[in-house]
Amino acid sequence: MSGNSFGKIFRVTTFGESHGPATGCVIDGCPSGLPFTAEAVNRELARRRPGGGGAATLRREADECEILSGVFQGTTLGTPIAIIIRNTSQRSADYDVLKDVFRPGHADWCWETKFGLRDHNGGGRSSGRETAARVAAGALAKMLLAHFGIEIRAWTGAIAGIIAPEPQENGFDLQEAENNSLRIPCSKTAVIIEKHIEKLRKAGDSAGGIVICRAAGVPAGLGEPVFEKLDALISQAILSIGAAKSIEFGNGFNAAAASGYENNDTPIPAKDSVTFDGMPPVSFASNRAGGVLGGISTGMPLEFRVAFKPVPSVSKEQKTVDKNGHECSISIQGRHDICVCPRAVPVVEAMTALVLADLMLQRRCNRL
Amino acid sequence: MSGNSFGKIFRVTTFGESHGPATGCVIDGCPSGLPFTAEAVNRELARRRPGGGGAATLRREADECEILSGVFQGTTLGTPIAIIIRNTSQRSADYDVLKDVFRPGHADWCWETKFGLRDHNGGGRSSGRETAARVAAGALAKMLLAHFGIEIRAWTGAIAGIIAPEPQENGFDLQEAENNSLRIPCSKTAVIIEKHIEKLRKAGDSAGGIVICRAAGVPAGLGEPVFEKLDALISQAILSIGAAKSIEFGNGFNAAAASGYENNDTPIPAKDSVTFDGMPPVSFASNRAGGVLGGISTGMPLEFRVAFKPVPSVSKEQKTVDKNGHECSISIQGRHDICVCPRAVPVVEAMTALVLADLMLQRRCNRL
Amino acid sequence: MSGNSFGKIFRVTTFGESHGPATGCVIDGCPSGLPFTAEAVNRELARRRPGGGGAATLRREADECEILSGVFQGTTLGTPIAIIIRNTSQRSADYDVLKDVFRPGHADWCWETKFGLRDHNGGGRSSGRETAARVAAGALAKMLLAHFGIEIRAWTGAIAGIIAPEPQENGFDLQEAENNSLRIPCSKTAVIIEKHIEKLRKAGDSAGGIVICRAAGVPAGLGEPVFEKLDALISQAILSIGAAKSIEFGNGFNAAAASGYENNDTPIPAKDSVTFDGMPPVSFASNRAGGVLGGISTGMPLEFRVAFKPVPSVSKEQKTVDKNGHECSISIQGRHDICVCPRAVPVVEAMTALVLADLMLQRRCNRL
Amino acid sequence: MSGNSFGKIFRVTTFGESHGPATGCVIDGCPSGLPFTAEAVNRELARRRPGGGGAATLRREADECEILSGVFQGTTLGTPIAIIIRNTSQRSADYDVLKDVFRPGHADWCWETKFGLRDHNGGGRSSGRETAARVAAGALAKMLLAHFGIEIRAWTGAIAGIIAPEPQENGFDLQEAENNSLRIPCSKTAVIIEKHIEKLRKAGDSAGGIVICRAAGVPAGLGEPVFEKLDALISQAILSIGAAKSIEFGNGFNAAAASGYENNDTPIPAKDSVTFDGMPPVSFASNRAGGVLGGISTGMPLEFRVAFKPVPSVSKEQKTVDKNGHECSISIQGRHDICVCPRAVPVVEAMTALVLADLMLQRRCNRL
Repeated sequence: MSGNSFGKIFRVTTFGESHGPATGCVIDGCPSGLPFTAEAVNRELARRRPGGGGAATLRREADECEILSGVFQGTTLGTPIAIIIRNTSQRSADYDVLKDVFRPGHADWCWETKFGLRDHNGGGRSSGRETAARVAAGALAKMLLAHFGIEIRAWTGAIAGIIAPEPQENGFDLQEAENNSLRIPCSKTAVIIEKHIEKLRKAGDSAGGIVICRAAGVPAGLGEPVFEKLDALISQAILSIGAAKSIEFGNGFNAAAASGYENNDTPIPAKDSVTFDGMPPVSFASNRAGGVLGGISTGMPLEFRVAFKPVPSVSKEQKTVDKNGHECSISIQGRHDICVCPRAVPVVEAMTALVLADLMLQRRCNRL
Repeated sequence: MSGNSFGKIFRVTTFGESHGPATGCVIDGCPSGLPFTAEAVNRELARRRPGGGGAATLRREADECEILSGVFQGTTLGTPIAIIIRNTSQRSADYDVLKDVFRPGHADWCWETKFGLRDHNGGGRSSGRETAARVAAGALAKMLLAHFGIEIRAWTGAIAGIIAPEPQENGFDLQEAENNSLRIPCSKTAVIIEKHIEKLRKAGDSAGGIVICRAAGVPAGLGEPVFEKLDALISQAILSIGAAKSIEFGNGFNAAAASGYENNDTPIPAKDSVTFDGMPPVSFASNRAGGVLGGISTGMPLEFRVAFKPVPSVSKEQKTVDKNGHECSISIQGRHDICVCPRAVPVVEAMTALVLADLMLQRRCNRL
Repeated sequence: MSGNSFGKIFRVTTFGESHGPATGCVIDGCPSGLPFTAEAVNRELARRRPGGGGAATLRREADECEILSGVFQGTTLGTPIAIIIRNTSQRSADYDVLKDVFRPGHADWCWETKFGLRDHNGGGRSSGRETAARVAAGALAKMLLAHFGIEIRAWTGAIAGIIAPEPQENGFDLQEAENNSLRIPCSKTAVIIEKHIEKLRKAGDSAGGIVICRAAGVPAGLGEPVFEKLDALISQAILSIGAAKSIEFGNGFNAAAASGYENNDTPIPAKDSVTFDGMPPVSFASNRAGGVLGGISTGMPLEFRVAFKPVPSVSKEQKTVDKNGHECSISIQGRHDICVCPRAVPVVEAMTALVLADLMLQRRCNRL
Repeated sequence: MSGNSFGKIFRVTTFGESHGPATGCVIDGCPSGLPFTAEAVNRELARRRPGGGGAATLRREADECEILSGVFQGTTLGTPIAIIIRNTSQRSADYDVLKDVFRPGHADWCWETKFGLRDHNGGGRSSGRETAARVAAGALAKMLLAHFGIEIRAWTGAIAGIIAPEPQENGFDLQEAENNSLRIPCSKTAVIIEKHIEKLRKAGDSAGGIVICRAAGVPAGLGEPVFEKLDALISQAILSIGAAKSIEFGNGFNAAAASGYENNDTPIPAKDSVTFDGMPPVSFASNRAGGVLGGISTGMPLEFRVAFKPVPSVSKEQKTVDKNGHECSISIQGRHDICVCPRAVPVVEAMTALVLADLMLQRRCNRL
């Protein structure tokens, strides 16, 4: 029941506490015959590492993975692939002061109420460190999706209410977003946000933000019509990322104020799109649906936006309750991000990749 | 794979096409010993039926259910509970003109691309009719939750951009929302919206809207820390409802623009709240988190908002593509809602109930 | 958790108490495009009905099914297929005397210890009646397997220690087994067993027996190498039939006394067998393995034998315990089979079909 | 789909190729608060290691495990527990000659037909080495069961047709079975079998055998009434062990020849047995059922017997087919067991423990 697995055919299980020996994952159900190496994982892990930008934690993990199984001479065997990432940079002493106090905005009290005990070091399993394992699994999912012609890219859309202009899209040219440590696809906005973050850091405060994700090359027909709609699965996947508080597809909340005539995307004949036997290829004049209708992909890019709450660990003094039930105050020092968005970008991509990889395999069973 | 089941311990499977013999569900995993009758289901089904208000379809199903198994002398046996609702009011002829054309904003083309064929009558399984089975299962989940002291209530928060004031809440006194057919908790706003809907109906158009849901009495500790966070599961559950395009918990998208110091809810000692062994009872000075931290319930009410897109079936003429891949125009007549929100209210409640019922059982396994 | 579902892609859920309104099943995950009708189900249900032979119960259900969903114009839609069979011949009064006493060899006491209450009429859900739903689902699985060239046939191998000669097999010519009500593939042995059964009936006693099953046309490569080995899944499927107490594959228990050199089947080049890319077609000089090696099908027929215990309901007086914990005696009248084997034959076939149908779909995901 | 996971609440996933970097497992769903250490695992791994007896392989792994997560200060956290065992004694060169030939009695050809490629070194994932991970997970399950008063013990009942007398049972005094390397609970029989094994070794042949397992302290009420009967789950668990070909519960195949009156176990009032509210405590005068009726545990010891086929790797020359589809001969050298039974004993215990641990948690959800 414990919810550390995700997916049905392409199924990932993650494990690991922030300051335990290792973080890792097992991926069961990856088909045999896919080229895969530790480098593909390390590349993605590097994207998740604190990038040196002002928004990031100072904790620096080497984050070199080891593949323990399931790969033979650079190719997947069809057997479970276990990947571990050793935790090497723990400074548990930072957390000793937090042992007997419940941090505001964190799961400390809920967790202990649930399980009766917790590993308070570095947040234990509720730490963002857990997402390293997701990124590792996502690296494999991305390899599988690349084989099918699907590419996923996410970027930071806003921080602290400062909104970046939408990227000029030629296909997926989001190089700019990868050029700055905030993953903002506009260098000018990035500079403005950097300054604001510096101010927050000095004030001992933090910022929320928005991550935007787009998957191109998704064929029509992914997603199941009832409980496992494409958008339902993506929503679970994304809201399972620690600080995510909201998701919207295509027009999203704006659709709630629109009329049906305005909001519908007009189907148009498509010359070049490939489709199944007998079906006419169809495209759409717009993508207000965000690439999904009735829970099934339309062949248009999958597009959604995610709201992340501000990092709750701030050095500004906050009131809270301690283990004896008494009021107290804390100022959280440690090494924390100011805004999770830049580092959440590869996690959002990874979770999206896990959903799509699973659905690409599932659809092999749709028809006789 | 086909995604017609939901839940792990308390697990529901739905079946049924809109114009087939019956719609129904099987609930497996309900504990033995719970009082349950067909009346409890029929009551909820009545709430989902078109209420006579201007926003609703003219199709009127009797919607009397039959319980086929799992209940003995008014009490659950611990065996699977099958419930069916006969489809009695089909007017398939209405749909004959839609057989060879793909409706804008619907899954027609995606569905046929996926499965190679479809039951076009009444939308087949992609019809909102499928939610009757969810409401039936939800009725059982609500009985189970009532046993645990949990109550769920949803209402319409806005239609077509016209926002209703938040209900004066004395606990859950939302009687006003049940008094008008739009389920708006403010009779004045309801009148204004009714007029706007009438205008849309005449223009052959439709409206989107927002549904708000609140669950009270949820104990702290529900939800699993990684992929099956409480909010992740609720998101899947809610986005699996046909027209839902977005969900936000507590502060939601606003959290993305807030600072950590602003956004954190301050923990405070709680005198009267019951909690597990040894843990101090804690409450919170505010509920910007919407009742969930790190994916685990906090003991505060679970609160979220859902955006529904406008009904895509409009009588205004729209361009689209037919089965031969040619452009064409359609004007959809049939019997359709103008806005799904009023009838989505019991569906949102049902899906929320399914998640919480499952988690209430799951938590029995958290600790030794 | 409640274990009323079976299978992963081709997934069946059954429901129904023996004397409740109906017994039935939902099959989720059947691909679209398969021809299917109620007649296919009724044919198999007729095989499970008491055949008039001496071994069978006198209860006669009409056993006409109704398909409620998932089939459109005689073809599967890819949506869940719900099938119900009304219970029409209940004589609950027969069971009133059994309300307060625990029948030897039945689950009465265990069940009530587990759930706290039970529907004692006709055994409730622990009745063999539940297998009607399995046979209905198996009818669909058999249709799917026939499409893939797989045929499953079971027969009675022995009753009360009287062993029938193995059928002369030209492919699967087991017509003889279907010609007599005991499903013994040898009319002479059938007559002998009939006489023995008559003796047992007069003595108020019952008999155990053996069912043998063979699936031909199973391609090499079915079954997963670790926990979901083909034989492991078949074992779960078969031992989930009420009175089954043992299963053996191929040489079975005899293998335990053999040497490796004796027991190995020699691989031989196969000219006509079809196989995957690049692999040499291989057959085997014998089939002591019963068609499975390392949990994966070999391309030889899948063969196994199942031991069924004697029907525990006997009219001969037995000692037992009542609901007050006191010793008492009972003589069970009602309408009961003397030996379950003849009627278990279609159930064994159905369960085998469910496993193979699921694996035939699963294997679409083995390779890139 | 790939079947490397087992269990629903207490869920184990194993990974690892015989000659890859490591073998291991992740256990998700173990409740928090259970004392657990690497020593508990190493103790069980030592029991699985070649014991020096004549039946065992000469490969000697250090088999020291590392716990990577889920345990904090010697206590389970309620988070996933990852355990790895490094592979240190690979001699892959032994397997080079087997690269292009399909070993009789092994899955080589089936595997390659299924996946298109395989890691031939040491049998890859189809090696018995995989069971080390099961034993590690089983060590945790045993700790959990011990907490509930359940103890599982297995032993070798026969090898090559030489049957050991049933152990004199005072509770579970099977110390004798652990005193000899064959795990025969009778030292005299052990000596006789040792000699026979030596003869087989010289002849380049191998032996099958029987393992018997008994679980004491199992409360009444475990197992679900339909597809997840206790004996059905045990059967899947046990038949998922590489060389297992048959299982029988209690009277097993003998029940097939018995009459109902003979075979029923008579329920008797039980003074000292603890039971649920209101239910009279019941025991049974015999245990021909093997501790399970209608798929639900009776409170009597769970008892079953497993037939293992002889080790297929023999040095005696055998005919087979190579990768080009040509006939050829092989004589398998390497380091192999003569009979798997002694080393299968802890694996049988582990798999039984996994089933029972899962069911002990599941039953928390039976009743309101």
